[in-house]
Amino acid sequence: MLAVVAHGAGDLRVEHRDEPVPGPGEVAVAVRYGGICGSDLHYYRHGAVGDFRLREPLVLGHEVVGTVDGTPVAVHPGRSCGECGQCLRGSRHLCVSGGYLGSAARFPHVQGGFAGTLVVPAESVRPLPTGLDLRRAAVAEPAAVAWHAVARAGDVRGRRVLVTGAGPIGCLVVAALRAAGAGEIVVTDLHPGPLRVAEAVGATATQAATEPVEHVEADVAVESSGSPAGLTACLRGVERGGLVVALGLLPPGDSPVAANLIVTRELRVTGSFRFGAELDDVLPALADGRLAVDPVVTSVLPATAAREAFELAADPARSCKVLLDFRPGG
Amino acid sequence: MLAVVAHGAGDLRVEHRDEPVPGPGEVAVAVRYGGICGSDLHYYRHGAVGDFRLREPLVLGHEVVGTVDGTPVAVHPGRSCGECGQCLRGSRHLCVSGGYLGSAARFPHVQGGFAGTLVVPAESVRPLPTGLDLRRAAVAEPAAVAWHAVARAGDVRGRRVLVTGAGPIGCLVVAALRAAGAGEIVVTDLHPGPLRVAEAVGATATQAATEPVEHVEADVAVESSGSPAGLTACLRGVERGGLVVALGLLPPGDSPVAANLIVTRELRVTGSFRFGAELDDVLPALADGRLAVDPVVTSVLPATAAREAFELAADPARSCKVLLDFRPGG
Amino acid sequence: MLAVVAHGAGDLRVEHRDEPVPGPGEVAVAVRYGGICGSDLHYYRHGAVGDFRLREPLVLGHEVVGTVDGTPVAVHPGRSCGECGQCLRGSRHLCVSGGYLGSAARFPHVQGGFAGTLVVPAESVRPLPTGLDLRRAAVAEPAAVAWHAVARAGDVRGRRVLVTGAGPIGCLVVAALRAAGAGEIVVTDLHPGPLRVAEAVGATATQAATEPVEHVEADVAVESSGSPAGLTACLRGVERGGLVVALGLLPPGDSPVAANLIVTRELRVTGSFRFGAELDDVLPALADGRLAVDPVVTSVLPATAAREAFELAADPARSCKVLLDFRPGG
Amino acid sequence: MLAVVAHGAGDLRVEHRDEPVPGPGEVAVAVRYGGICGSDLHYYRHGAVGDFRLREPLVLGHEVVGTVDGTPVAVHPGRSCGECGQCLRGSRHLCVSGGYLGSAARFPHVQGGFAGTLVVPAESVRPLPTGLDLRRAAVAEPAAVAWHAVARAGDVRGRRVLVTGAGPIGCLVVAALRAAGAGEIVVTDLHPGPLRVAEAVGATATQAATEPVEHVEADVAVESSGSPAGLTACLRGVERGGLVVALGLLPPGDSPVAANLIVTRELRVTGSFRFGAELDDVLPALADGRLAVDPVVTSVLPATAAREAFELAADPARSCKVLLDFRPGG
Repeated sequence: MLAVVAHGAGDLRVEHRDEPVPGPGEVAVAVRYGGICGSDLHYYRHGAVGDFRLREPLVLGHEVVGTVDGTPVAVHPGRSCGECGQCLRGSRHLCVSGGYLGSAARFPHVQGGFAGTLVVPAESVRPLPTGLDLRRAAVAEPAAVAWHAVARAGDVRGRRVLVTGAGPIGCLVVAALRAAGAGEIVVTDLHPGPLRVAEAVGATATQAATEPVEHVEADVAVESSGSPAGLTACLRGVERGGLVVALGLLPPGDSPVAANLIVTRELRVTGSFRFGAELDDVLPALADGRLAVDPVVTSVLPATAAREAFELAADPARSCKVLLDFRPGG
Repeated sequence: MLAVVAHGAGDLRVEHRDEPVPGPGEVAVAVRYGGICGSDLHYYRHGAVGDFRLREPLVLGHEVVGTVDGTPVAVHPGRSCGECGQCLRGSRHLCVSGGYLGSAARFPHVQGGFAGTLVVPAESVRPLPTGLDLRRAAVAEPAAVAWHAVARAGDVRGRRVLVTGAGPIGCLVVAALRAAGAGEIVVTDLHPGPLRVAEAVGATATQAATEPVEHVEADVAVESSGSPAGLTACLRGVERGGLVVALGLLPPGDSPVAANLIVTRELRVTGSFRFGAELDDVLPALADGRLAVDPVVTSVLPATAAREAFELAADPARSCKVLLDFRPGG
Repeated sequence: MLAVVAHGAGDLRVEHRDEPVPGPGEVAVAVRYGGICGSDLHYYRHGAVGDFRLREPLVLGHEVVGTVDGTPVAVHPGRSCGECGQCLRGSRHLCVSGGYLGSAARFPHVQGGFAGTLVVPAESVRPLPTGLDLRRAAVAEPAAVAWHAVARAGDVRGRRVLVTGAGPIGCLVVAALRAAGAGEIVVTDLHPGPLRVAEAVGATATQAATEPVEHVEADVAVESSGSPAGLTACLRGVERGGLVVALGLLPPGDSPVAANLIVTRELRVTGSFRFGAELDDVLPALADGRLAVDPVVTSVLPATAAREAFELAADPARSCKVLLDFRPGG
Repeated sequence: MLAVVAHGAGDLRVEHRDEPVPGPGEVAVAVRYGGICGSDLHYYRHGAVGDFRLREPLVLGHEVVGTVDGTPVAVHPGRSCGECGQCLRGSRHLCVSGGYLGSAARFPHVQGGFAGTLVVPAESVRPLPTGLDLRRAAVAEPAAVAWHAVARAGDVRGRRVLVTGAGPIGCLVVAALRAAGAGEIVVTDLHPGPLRVAEAVGATATQAATEPVEHVEADVAVESSGSPAGLTACLRGVERGGLVVALGLLPPGDSPVAANLIVTRELRVTGSFRFGAELDDVLPALADGRLAVDPVVTSVLPATAAREAFELAADPARSCKVLLDFRPGG
């Protein structure tokens, strides 16, 4: 089978590997689409995500959909132990010994899903609801990340929300906010292209990331840029007592942030990391149209053109979400 | 009357001023004790607190108690408009046009309470409950700041709590945590003296601020040092999904903080700024002994020795909370 | 002008009254539509709502829209003092000395809006957003009641919800749940007609109120029938630890309810009473189609036929929400 | 060994039974004290608790302490499956297939701890902290029930609280409220004796249950009487928007309750059932004196006098909590 493998910084290869065989309690997913995520790009460009450095070749990819014996399915990429304190209190996504598809966080690495066939525990797959095809379901995983972040904001119906960063995650946050009934959604980004996608999925106003945000006086802000400047913009753009959801992955180590505003304006900041059961919420919402995300996918390339696809995904002026197709025409 | 006035950086004077006369709806407080706060020290040493710079001489002081016509009272130093969005939703302490005793945040400055007589609106004074004398009530204002911070943490009964910084506010946080039923209270500071005060008011363990905190795995952390390193220690010292209350005033502008941990460990950070109705909770708690804070006050000096008192208060190796006495022997 | 006035139990009259003149700070609304609410029906049939008995003739109606100098507006029917504890903490709808249009709760009664012209404080009217006409805006008031109830349930995205009672309020709750992203919405009622309306606005399943509900195992239930049996059904239909929103007005005095389930299944029950700022959330949601409520209005009659309209509104087999038109053809 | 066994309504026997032998993963507790609970009294007097009827002889008792190989321990009486939805989200005390010592809720019944030796899973015992003796630890189980109820009320520091019912649970709620920093605690009961115990553990005011409670205007009420009238008193005694914790077990089936107040005063009612990890919070709080409950235990009788002890426990005029001693003088 085909696999998209990171061997080190700048060294991405499309390789042939032996077809894996499912063991007891496992299923083999015939992968159709895989979405390229920011962490895939980090492994490709830097050979690392934050402190997690490649120590062996890693099949990338955790946003995958395909079929099991002909049934279309989405794949939940997370694993959890079920026994630690986090799992026992229902926060399986914070499991202290959990894993994630296509991640170098532990060694041996957890190999990912950018491959012709992916073997996972049977409980990791979710049959797609009626009316949802594989193409649209391909964004279910990052949409669940966005959905989780919006859930951390509580009831946003009718609220004014600031979103910093209009990459794929920021745009999916906009769509999730729209589904949750947010009133106004103001989006900022450094580039005009991403802002156009944000408008297509429901932003009510956009502005350059270099402009001031104090006038927004948002009830809630969602940081989706992964930059310290974006987090500071969120702290400035909410009103006193407001809430900031920190979703975009920030650089490891110290970041320069206007943290004094948290104190003097009595703000609340809440992190949002991956997701838990939200995949089960997102699939029906994609099926019935509540979660309208089609403009987010800007390109689909055959998996054999993975390098070109990664280069495209790395350029926000030319793309939002880029999908790999492992069975073109299939 | 006597007044303790900051004229600029390093220029603190004990002056004679005319006795103020209360207008309609006002009362004259014969001030007995005034506690020296970190912001008083900032005006004294730097001529400014954060972005708020002295533009005219300022009577310092907002932690004051005294008598009105012989009745012992505490003074609430905050003012609010009652009409802005923050006031209407019950967050008067976040009033966008509010004021605070002894503050240069607006011009003309709001003159403070380090003076023989202080005139305030009648609704700003609180008669002391039976069993509470002026000497012990002198810390009611900073205790209310601590009480508000602990309230922002929710129910802490039986919980493990990390407190970074054992200055007066950190130690009052420890006492408030103890009153709220916290299980373990681990306190860090750069100096051994403050840690001894923290133990006296209820810390169950202490350690140097230079030591790692990852092993604490606290449910809640309260940042009371006002330093970016203290905030990062809180982010490291709570378990995944944990809560950090940011109370200590951080420097203006960007601070270096390990903000990525908020995302990857899905932490919650909540600011805590001054207080609202908590003064009314703190006074009975001081009276009946639930809130046991006596070790926090390490020195009482006559107001005529204000410069010496400020120097002492500025040295954590020699003092915790220092009080000025405006009527020694009275 | 025309006015629809309750003089006692069963005694509803369409009368001519002098045109009211607005005083300082007031505006005159040329009323177009008025929706008949359950409390209007109670005054008509019993001369009372709960403990509030007619002591003088009362112009009914609090669900009214119209124009001020040609501008289409909705009317917020609530008044609040702005000074009591409830108002100060932001719960103006719980004001201890507040009033409501068309209510006998205080004496003299607050006259209502079923009249050709209604004079209200200027701050009580809300210009309609672009794209929202008076006909659709006519349900904004009860929709805000439903919206408030759904907000009390917290984040319902993807959740399974039970709604007992498919009268106008129950159906508007269904629409608000749909807008808020609820996953499954199971509705019960004694009659098949209301259940058909519930399906038209988003119910995913319906059943007779006489059937058991234990199998629903809802995350949240919203009691919209106003009957003790409906409340007990909610207590039975949520899973352990679940949430019940009590919205339908129950009879005064003791009601027979399976309250022991609250204890042994550790349920949470939260009341929901009228609404506050939610009118400002509902109007844009009606304008942009997020809140889709058209099937709820089953009849529009001229105000001159008020008695027939009230009889129709009182029969759930023949109607859901019934509107009076005070300017037919206007 | 000795065992206190209910054979049917009014038929309580002190019997000799074979000493049980622990299996793998189990420990044998040499029982010292067992507290008589309201459910024990129900089995004794009615042969049933609510819908759970005796179908075989049942060793009563779930409030037990003793020693394991000489080490003093408290016993957690609950069992949970660890696999159901409730367990997975951290609510093990709501486990759908859980068990409890001395309960007829399932068949065969779970035999209880009123016996010379009790065999339980090793994870059910908690060694007592230094400074806590068996005699004082004997109320740890009902104190954990009270602690859990107070935790459901959120932060009660400085708040005004109404407690209806001053039996053992009501008095332990008062002590837990005191430990949590409640400001005022008003307690009602039908009898003067229980009210005196309530005062001894921290009630700031008491009144007869027949008196009106509207003037209390509590922030929070805790229903501890197990009577519908007590629940209605709580609904009347909190201010608008207030919180009622329903703790006392109400009769099965419909109870007459003024449930309309939940709607019109927008109250919140939250059930409280048994407890989870709170036993681990209560033991240190008993040890260090934060939780001061000594006046609650009014009598200790040898287990051989179990019938007399049960009669005494059933009479609120003569007793609060009654303990059985299985090793008098030991």
